[in-house]
Amino acid sequence: MITRLSQLFLRTLRDDPADAEVASHKLLVRAGYVRRIAPGVYSWLPLGLRVLREVERVVREEMDAIGAQEILLPALLPREPYETSNRWTEYGAGLFRLKDRKGNDYMLGPTHEELFALTVKGEYNSYKDFPVTLYQVQTKYRDEERPRAGILRGREFVMKDSYSFDLTDEGLAASYQAHRDAYERILQRLGVKYVIVSATSGAMGGSASEEFLAESPIGEDTYVRCIESGYAANVEAVKTLAPAAIPFDGQPEAKVYDTPDTPTIESLVDWANGATGVSNEASKTFTAADTLKNIMVKTRVPGGEWELLGIGIPGDREVDEKRLEAALTPAEYVLITETDFKNNPFLVKGYIGPKALQANGIRYLVDPRVVDGTSWITGADEEGKHVVGLVAGRDFTPDGTIEAAEVRDGDPSPDGAGPLVAARGIEVGHVFQLGRKYTDAFGVDVLGENGKPVRPTMGSYGIGVSRLVAVMAEQQHDDKGLRWPAEVSPANVHLVIANKDDAAREGAEALAAELDRAGLSVILDDRKASPGVKFKDSELLGVPLVVVVGRGFAEGNVELRDRFTGESREVPAGTALAEVLAAVRG
Amino acid sequence: MITRLSQLFLRTLRDDPADAEVASHKLLVRAGYVRRIAPGVYSWLPLGLRVLREVERVVREEMDAIGAQEILLPALLPREPYETSNRWTEYGAGLFRLKDRKGNDYMLGPTHEELFALTVKGEYNSYKDFPVTLYQVQTKYRDEERPRAGILRGREFVMKDSYSFDLTDEGLAASYQAHRDAYERILQRLGVKYVIVSATSGAMGGSASEEFLAESPIGEDTYVRCIESGYAANVEAVKTLAPAAIPFDGQPEAKVYDTPDTPTIESLVDWANGATGVSNEASKTFTAADTLKNIMVKTRVPGGEWELLGIGIPGDREVDEKRLEAALTPAEYVLITETDFKNNPFLVKGYIGPKALQANGIRYLVDPRVVDGTSWITGADEEGKHVVGLVAGRDFTPDGTIEAAEVRDGDPSPDGAGPLVAARGIEVGHVFQLGRKYTDAFGVDVLGENGKPVRPTMGSYGIGVSRLVAVMAEQQHDDKGLRWPAEVSPANVHLVIANKDDAAREGAEALAAELDRAGLSVILDDRKASPGVKFKDSELLGVPLVVVVGRGFAEGNVELRDRFTGESREVPAGTALAEVLAAVRG
Repeated sequence: MITRLSQLFLRTLRDDPADAEVASHKLLVRAGYVRRIAPGVYSWLPLGLRVLREVERVVREEMDAIGAQEILLPALLPREPYETSNRWTEYGAGLFRLKDRKGNDYMLGPTHEELFALTVKGEYNSYKDFPVTLYQVQTKYRDEERPRAGILRGREFVMKDSYSFDLTDEGLAASYQAHRDAYERILQRLGVKYVIVSATSGAMGGSASEEFLAESPIGEDTYVRCIESGYAANVEAVKTLAPAAIPFDGQPEAKVYDTPDTPTIESLVDWANGATGVSNEASKTFTAADTLKNIMVKTRVPGGEWELLGIGIPGDREVDEKRLEAALTPAEYVLITETDFKNNPFLVKGYIGPKALQANGIRYLVDPRVVDGTSWITGADEEGKHVVGLVAGRDFTPDGTIEAAEVRDGDPSPDGAGPLVAARGIEVGHVFQLGRKYTDAFGVDVLGENGKPVRPTMGSYGIGVSRLVAVMAEQQHDDKGLRWPAEVSPANVHLVIANKDDAAREGAEALAAELDRAGLSVILDDRKASPGVKFKDSELLGVPLVVVVGRGFAEGNVELRDRFTGESREVPAGTALAEVLAAVRG
Repeated sequence: MITRLSQLFLRTLRDDPADAEVASHKLLVRAGYVRRIAPGVYSWLPLGLRVLREVERVVREEMDAIGAQEILLPALLPREPYETSNRWTEYGAGLFRLKDRKGNDYMLGPTHEELFALTVKGEYNSYKDFPVTLYQVQTKYRDEERPRAGILRGREFVMKDSYSFDLTDEGLAASYQAHRDAYERILQRLGVKYVIVSATSGAMGGSASEEFLAESPIGEDTYVRCIESGYAANVEAVKTLAPAAIPFDGQPEAKVYDTPDTPTIESLVDWANGATGVSNEASKTFTAADTLKNIMVKTRVPGGEWELLGIGIPGDREVDEKRLEAALTPAEYVLITETDFKNNPFLVKGYIGPKALQANGIRYLVDPRVVDGTSWITGADEEGKHVVGLVAGRDFTPDGTIEAAEVRDGDPSPDGAGPLVAARGIEVGHVFQLGRKYTDAFGVDVLGENGKPVRPTMGSYGIGVSRLVAVMAEQQHDDKGLRWPAEVSPANVHLVIANKDDAAREGAEALAAELDRAGLSVILDDRKASPGVKFKDSELLGVPLVVVVGRGFAEGNVELRDRFTGESREVPAGTALAEVLAAVRG
């Protein structure tokens, strides 16, 4: 196929779009790949659509290779199945909802667990039919609060979602692994630098879950990894490495002190280490890590009542709201208000301690570092008083632990192999072992081998097709423009006519025709523009191999430029076809 | 590619679905091609999706061949452009509307004239860029009042829509013709029997417009054609062949008669031909065609006031509501009420005549048959009185003509070549010369050759991709099941293993592998089912070439069955590959 720039529906832009902040967004707009229609809603112009379709092709090939079968469900979905699974409500404002002319409720599908479960229920009824994995490549909708960075986080986007149905946990594990491997192959073919992190499963329910994050400083997901062991996890999923318990023996009794003017952890530590404090007595210098701060929230499971919850974490750490949210899900939480303090007078603001909580039957969860035998300075449940030497397991017994404290660079990896390092990434894929949440919800039962009904267990797997276009642009661009991996480039070759002589033009046309006959796709820059403009556009558009028919053509040479390395070399025009074929086909 | 029925996500059904009325719907469901999710909203299962994709491929090939360039616009569209074009309102209840989390209005795109005009405006600014034609293959949405026949008239459906932009009327005519030709090629490749009919352009605006109707007795569109000349038109678009004017000379004067008990046209004709009537005097026998009935409606252009309109048509014809609607569009109309009669006492119910209408300044449009010199029996604007011999052009002068009367079998073709015959069809394509409606609305101007701005003129073209799947099923099925044209069949060959011997099974597997290597796609029925069940499924699924490895395999033969003709023949297994290749590649 030959695509002539003189005819292609394309205008490259010299200036960055005003609303663009990240490089991929700027370049995809400047290079005429996408255009904004509304916040998070984009058009795909010819070259952009080609890259999108190539990514879809790669994804399909890898899905087909693991035996997944493609189907296509509607994007316009009736409310009922999502009511049954409770997600009609759970999705909150993130769901586009609408009514049809008869007033019936519909939604635009963000993900399709419900309908795939129902689809399998509709077709299959025997253990002999399993396992089965179905997938679709589909336009999906999420009413993001903050659509961002062009197609990177859109409200209308293309996603490949697949769903495995197995009769055993071992089967599910195998389906999960097959998808995990397929996603690795997809990302490798697209040249995406990624890391697989343990993830919490959020509103999806289920157990084992990993995210594929494309490494990028502009990513919205923070993850940590341990260089020594390769451990990597979404921050929400990091399990704190708990220290060993400490014997109670010999630990002094807890004592309550007047601690005036200690409204902050810092001032409390200053008091402890000060002249009127307890530092000398304890023969140590206290730090914020020796204090235990107690945060009060109210939580509510869907459909339930609000309940008070106390959370104790070492004073040197902040609560990480995302981790707290993930730890509590599906319950939601809010901080308590003045009214709550009034209604619960045993909560002394600024001086809340474990004792009052436990005495009043308030659930109390602590950071995993608060192991038995650790000694804490904490609130004494009286205005202006703190207790020193309050020992966990001896003086108070929490109801459990909670992963609510922030994770910090240098924290020990959960596998004990070394320190954690934080980085940022863009979620491009997600694999879940869902289990039976949806087959339970819809009563998906099939006849088992023993004649009794058996309920399939599901896996759910998603990869962001349109997002991957942005991710490739983000990871692989340089300051001159886009750079596409050969696998998904909008053309195999970008052939620039940079010589006005008729002979050169004819030579370029002949070469383009030869390349076309050899099955390559060629972008042919046959415009009446200066070589400089054409070179700039070839760099901006990002086809990995640029061939220039320029000044050297008079001496019988054409130039091959590698868009990734920037290297160029002259080759005889007569060998250009062979050289290009060798370069493209590796 | 080999698709094993033992593994394919497919369950064929023995019984017709309860909600299906037409054959294509029944068969597509029974054969496991589609499944209903909600009214007019369907899932595509593996084989159905393959056919859909093949139709898309054919459409793309023909679009690319005429130089159209593919892009992809969103389905989720902001309100503003459709507000500008007035279609946000005009679409009425047929549009899915929704709000995002910020309360902004969005819609699901039913067609994209607005955004394509804006897209071209955004990229192009010089006459040098034109002409350009853009297209997309996209999921579209219309909230049909009566979704029908499965995917035939869905609310979520796949359509190819394209838009041409030219600077001259000649250019538009050429772009229109190119699309018209491409649509003919598409329908021919799909084996669709179709007719091209003149059409009104409905809410789309614009002038020249033709519809591609697939011939089918279950079609919702009635069209007429003239066998002699090949003329064909949507009933809404039929222009009445007006008779020649008649001289006034010698025609008697109009006379008012008492016509008691003549509430109907029939009774009026009886009176005229009766003893107290005027038949003897006029030396003729009157028929209903000699009477002129006047229908009163109120019309309103969008945003305007309701106005009275009188419509005069020969008494032997009924008003065709669709034709009337098409004739008045974009104005809407309603019949007048008792209140209107009260407010306009000159309207004597049952006796309305042209005189009172014209005397009171009411707009009065007549059927094109009411030419100058025709003489009519009509209302005399007094209770119980009619006027006889009221001559058009002499005794009253209408404000114009209107195509509101029904078209009947046997009516003369507008080209005068012979009688019209009515038939039914399914609209599968539509080509419009839109003109500048949308480039005017959005001020799309580009620099002209002479340095002055020039406004492009648009064509709009649509073909129903998912609907075509239903149309092929409808036109080409037989009583045993579906029959797909080779061009879009879900596989090239359906290979049935109908022999339990290991040798036969191995032979079939070897043949499937050979076909696969030769680049053919094979559905291999390797299930443990009886030959009868397998044969029935092969007929239901509708792959045009069925190969059976059955009893004859012991003698070294396999059977080739033609699903369209029903013919079968035995060929030596050793030549099966060559025979199949010959059959598939023609």
